[in-house]
Amino acid sequence: MNKLFVIKVGGNIIDDEAKLKVFLTSVASVKSHKIVVHGGGKIATEIGNKLNIESKYINGRRITDDDTIDLVTMVYGGLINKKIVAQLQSLNCNAIGLTGADANIIPAKKRAVKDVDFGWVGDIDNSKVKSENLKALLESNFTPILAPLTHDEQGHILNTNADTIASSIAVALSTYYDVRLIYCFEKKGVLENVEDDNSVINLINKEKYRQLLEEQKLFAGILPKIDNAFAAIDAGVHEVLIGDANDLIQNTTNNTIGTLITQ
Amino acid sequence: MNKLFVIKVGGNIIDDEAKLKVFLTSVASVKSHKIVVHGGGKIATEIGNKLNIESKYINGRRITDDDTIDLVTMVYGGLINKKIVAQLQSLNCNAIGLTGADANIIPAKKRAVKDVDFGWVGDIDNSKVKSENLKALLESNFTPILAPLTHDEQGHILNTNADTIASSIAVALSTYYDVRLIYCFEKKGVLENVEDDNSVINLINKEKYRQLLEEQKLFAGILPKIDNAFAAIDAGVHEVLIGDANDLIQNTTNNTIGTLITQ
Repeated sequence: MNKLFVIKVGGNIIDDEAKLKVFLTSVASVKSHKIVVHGGGKIATEIGNKLNIESKYINGRRITDDDTIDLVTMVYGGLINKKIVAQLQSLNCNAIGLTGADANIIPAKKRAVKDVDFGWVGDIDNSKVKSENLKALLESNFTPILAPLTHDEQGHILNTNADTIASSIAVALSTYYDVRLIYCFEKKGVLENVEDDNSVINLINKEKYRQLLEEQKLFAGILPKIDNAFAAIDAGVHEVLIGDANDLIQNTTNNTIGTLITQ
Repeated sequence: MNKLFVIKVGGNIIDDEAKLKVFLTSVASVKSHKIVVHGGGKIATEIGNKLNIESKYINGRRITDDDTIDLVTMVYGGLINKKIVAQLQSLNCNAIGLTGADANIIPAKKRAVKDVDFGWVGDIDNSKVKSENLKALLESNFTPILAPLTHDEQGHILNTNADTIASSIAVALSTYYDVRLIYCFEKKGVLENVEDDNSVINLINKEKYRQLLEEQKLFAGILPKIDNAFAAIDAGVHEVLIGDANDLIQNTTNNTIGTLITQ
């Protein structure tokens, strides 16, 4: 099977012009097939403030009302996505910027209203991801750049977590490719001690994860990434790595750099 | 050769939810390959006003400064483009929304500064259009939806007239397809008498055009469309039609509906 890198990059890199350039240069240097999934960044909130669109959160999760879905469609699907595409093109990487609505790549379900109405938020059923359409793009030697947006197949764009999108497409494409899923992160990897940047845990299997959770050592923000990583591994993704973007992408040694998540 | 429809749609339809739905239903019903090129609409100006981005014009042409290119990238490449894509997907049309930067479809040149600095505006050299990349998308049965944006191959998005984009890709794809270029218009076609909606001129060749220009009968706004149409015809496009979107798309008769531009 051919190798495929699925690379998730978050706001901390997107918001920093110099870091973004280094990251995109790394991405452009990858010889095998690759897909980038990007998050939001502060710019959506900044533009939202100027437009008097209030950012609403419940339990740390953004509520996506009518104005907010238009805002993120503009900023994620337009501004951020096309800036990445234009820069990759200047680096001779044939990027094609998409949302999950484009080529019907990620049909999703609007989240059902229980206690909270999250608004225009989409949940993904991995089995519905149109991996054959992504494959057609990869086989034409395009590099898909995915914004964190899906659609409900009824004409509406939905806001969807970028980590989840990365995991879902990594799983769906495991049928065709030997997939390396990379979660880029502001640290060198998952840290044993959040105060010590050099305490990277090189390997986390389920046993080790249970143990770390019991010891309550991990930074809470990393838990959803690890959960997504295990979900991907269980569903057929070859390897999941968490750590510094450039280290992980450039690594051609057999040594683990960053944190490798495995069964 | 297979048939290809290149359909340009402007702000008057995009700004009107009901008209847009009728138009997209027509597009979705086209059995052959198709590409939609959309313009801007009032929404960019409205959002620009809220963001305190002033619309600047010289001789009726928008000046695209740094703030303005970000604005149109968001609104044209994000909001409008993805709304069209999501709606077409709900009509079972496998739309894929792109700018000219995506898949390097339309590399352009930033307009040289002479008397006026137009800013981030792109001019197209038809011979540089990457028609093979558009063809790859069409052959995967995707329907490209193009925003009026190109790129300079050096990392910058450029603002580019939608009529010109439609004409350029129609020309470039004439190598592979029997192209029908359609300029959708708020009237039934080019009018002999602008006061009379029923005075549609069914056929304009160069001789007729010269005569109409001498008589100064035509509405000034239609002249760039006709010029683009003749440029396309001269460069190999099979037929160019100007008129009502639904009439032109749905027409399966041999009768000319709207205005046919020909040698």
